[in-house]
Amino acid sequence: MTTQPPVPPTAASTATDDRGRIVRVVVTPVAFHAAPRYIGAGIHEPFALRSVVEVVTASGPTGLGESDGDEEHLRRLERVAGALVGLDVRDPDAVRAAVVRTADDRPVLAPFEVACLDAEARLAGVPVHALLGGQVRDRVPWSTPLFYTRAGHPGAPDDEVEALDPPGLVRQADRLARRSGLGAITLHGGVLPPATEVAAMRTLRHQFPGVALGLVAHGAWTVETSRWVAHELAGVVDQLDDPTPGVEGLGAVAQEAATLDPPLGVSASVRTPDELASALAVDALREVRVDPHAWGGLRAVQDVAARCADAGRTLSLEAPDHLGVSFAALTHLAAATPLLARGCDTPWSWRSPDEDVVRPGAPGLVDGAAGVPTAPGLGVELDRAALARLHRQYRDCGLRTRDDAGYLRRLRPDADERVPRW
Amino acid sequence: MTTQPPVPPTAASTATDDRGRIVRVVVTPVAFHAAPRYIGAGIHEPFALRSVVEVVTASGPTGLGESDGDEEHLRRLERVAGALVGLDVRDPDAVRAAVVRTADDRPVLAPFEVACLDAEARLAGVPVHALLGGQVRDRVPWSTPLFYTRAGHPGAPDDEVEALDPPGLVRQADRLARRSGLGAITLHGGVLPPATEVAAMRTLRHQFPGVALGLVAHGAWTVETSRWVAHELAGVVDQLDDPTPGVEGLGAVAQEAATLDPPLGVSASVRTPDELASALAVDALREVRVDPHAWGGLRAVQDVAARCADAGRTLSLEAPDHLGVSFAALTHLAAATPLLARGCDTPWSWRSPDEDVVRPGAPGLVDGAAGVPTAPGLGVELDRAALARLHRQYRDCGLRTRDDAGYLRRLRPDADERVPRW
Repeated sequence: MTTQPPVPPTAASTATDDRGRIVRVVVTPVAFHAAPRYIGAGIHEPFALRSVVEVVTASGPTGLGESDGDEEHLRRLERVAGALVGLDVRDPDAVRAAVVRTADDRPVLAPFEVACLDAEARLAGVPVHALLGGQVRDRVPWSTPLFYTRAGHPGAPDDEVEALDPPGLVRQADRLARRSGLGAITLHGGVLPPATEVAAMRTLRHQFPGVALGLVAHGAWTVETSRWVAHELAGVVDQLDDPTPGVEGLGAVAQEAATLDPPLGVSASVRTPDELASALAVDALREVRVDPHAWGGLRAVQDVAARCADAGRTLSLEAPDHLGVSFAALTHLAAATPLLARGCDTPWSWRSPDEDVVRPGAPGLVDGAAGVPTAPGLGVELDRAALARLHRQYRDCGLRTRDDAGYLRRLRPDADERVPRW
Repeated sequence: MTTQPPVPPTAASTATDDRGRIVRVVVTPVAFHAAPRYIGAGIHEPFALRSVVEVVTASGPTGLGESDGDEEHLRRLERVAGALVGLDVRDPDAVRAAVVRTADDRPVLAPFEVACLDAEARLAGVPVHALLGGQVRDRVPWSTPLFYTRAGHPGAPDDEVEALDPPGLVRQADRLARRSGLGAITLHGGVLPPATEVAAMRTLRHQFPGVALGLVAHGAWTVETSRWVAHELAGVVDQLDDPTPGVEGLGAVAQEAATLDPPLGVSASVRTPDELASALAVDALREVRVDPHAWGGLRAVQDVAARCADAGRTLSLEAPDHLGVSFAALTHLAAATPLLARGCDTPWSWRSPDEDVVRPGAPGLVDGAAGVPTAPGLGVELDRAALARLHRQYRDCGLRTRDDAGYLRRLRPDADERVPRW
């Protein structure tokens, strides 16, 4: 009796045709307007820079991916783009090897992995989540992120709701809720003195009873300050994200927060396998947060999910400003990953609906959750006119590298950039 | 009796080892200070943007190339860089095919062709000119380009010799001659009214007797004006370069200039095969000028030289601001190309000697001519500290795309950009 050879783990090895052969890869930098939000020790510049990746296959279907638009990153994307021609979208190992050989950078892999998944799923006539293990939920919860904001960028009209105190944050939440409903609420804090932010969370708790509340401090506090905040906010918020820099400090805060009544969760955002390993080694840290763009794609995040599940932890997603391609990718990932129950934390609702690169009709955010696309691939189509318009905006906007801290420094030369600051 | 297969035309096909296999390609954008020179209907911005290409082979030798530094061009360079890993530096056809497949752009090919030639020559232990057919001259003549200049960039110290009249141009020529000797002199004109430029050439003729004089007008004049200038300058200058836009007009001017006493040569700068074919079809145009960066490399220019020789024309080289890598490449090309007798027209002497990416001791310009390197390869070595310094300067300078016309428009909103203008 002969044993059968093991079944190949990916579709690639079984591809006997060249329908998935990559014949062309296009990388287009784009820019869209961004509100003057305080983020950590900086403030967002007037535009967010992104890049749209198109992977064109021999048989027709084009896969879409989306990534950061900083100039050095763009050059790495182009380098990988040049190395992908001739490979098969259904062979993720070959795609990954080309990335390692030419750029060796996980954030560079992500948009190509997503674009290949999109093309592969279109070839197979299935939605992307089917290639990620299958759908486990119909609606993907989304978190509404609040930011401290100026009323406008200097020299531009004041078209934002200024939010530098609790009433401003409540008005902002109301405005965002009108646009896309309220899921959970996460305040991006660490901007004003801790007592002021504690007061803000109490106001939000009062105004939005029954809504899950989180506070991400972007490492702005010492361990001691973080402990004080945890005591003040037990029973007010559900979770503190990155109160203090470094896993060791986060562990100390998490340990104390777990003893409060009610207990308060503490999460850590991780960007590298080393940081993940450190976070998983600290029992008290019950949740890690990853950005699939930074982490290297959807399958890589599912690997993280498996490790978190093994370790008895939970996982949640975060992402920077993005467009409809990434929105769809995050939705497919969340739809297919059982461990991801918390709302994805991205500034999705902050972008003007007029500034997207996907055609109208793509699944959006309703009542704080995203419907899961059922069409083949990611379920979004590129709007070429919009892509061209946002590319011209990139060319003309003058920004080439995101620099929140430098922008704040120009606006307020005395700004305190220390981490932790309080 | 069996016939032997034909001998392969390139070294590549006979390579039986993998010493020339490309294992890594690095593209580094750099910026160096540039004087406020009027060029055509614009003025040069405070920095010149370039890129340095390193092609690393399996056996060690790294080949160097140099190219433009505009951001869209940089992205195309990176794309090709990604496609070259695994190819052999001794296989120019494969390198060219990778460029065609990924970027299809001759200016993108040039730096990789030069870097591969450099690496191949280092592997073979011969200077690059040996791979280009062998050395035909010991010293390569260089032209000293004069420009109308402001005294300084707005907001910066006036550290240039202002040259907006004949005495200023004479002082400028003296200053450049002290730096690197005087070969031929070429004034980059088409900036001031034609009668003023005619007067300038007469002054230069008087001040520099016995020196070959040229005037390039960057297409600033009508055919009629060009004819008038030709009559005025017969016996004063040796050649008019690009007096008027378009091959048809240039031909009419050249036909008349050839009847003068003494006859005056007229040349055309060509950037594409179509432009070359048009220029060669006009008998009166005795010389074409090409920039190897724009044309696609050294071997491609040698093909142009062969076509010019067949047609009984001469060829000369021109190039934009560049560093020591391109200086060496241009020198090797000129050393190995019999038809190139006129001085290479580039702003080489305008760059500060402190701002180069090659180590001191590289062959330079003495008495208006370059000595031909004899060391293996291009004969220059990368200065990594200098490369890092000029890369930081690129990052910090804020310029990303050369825009002479836009810069002049900001300085003088009423500037006349029409071609021809007079």
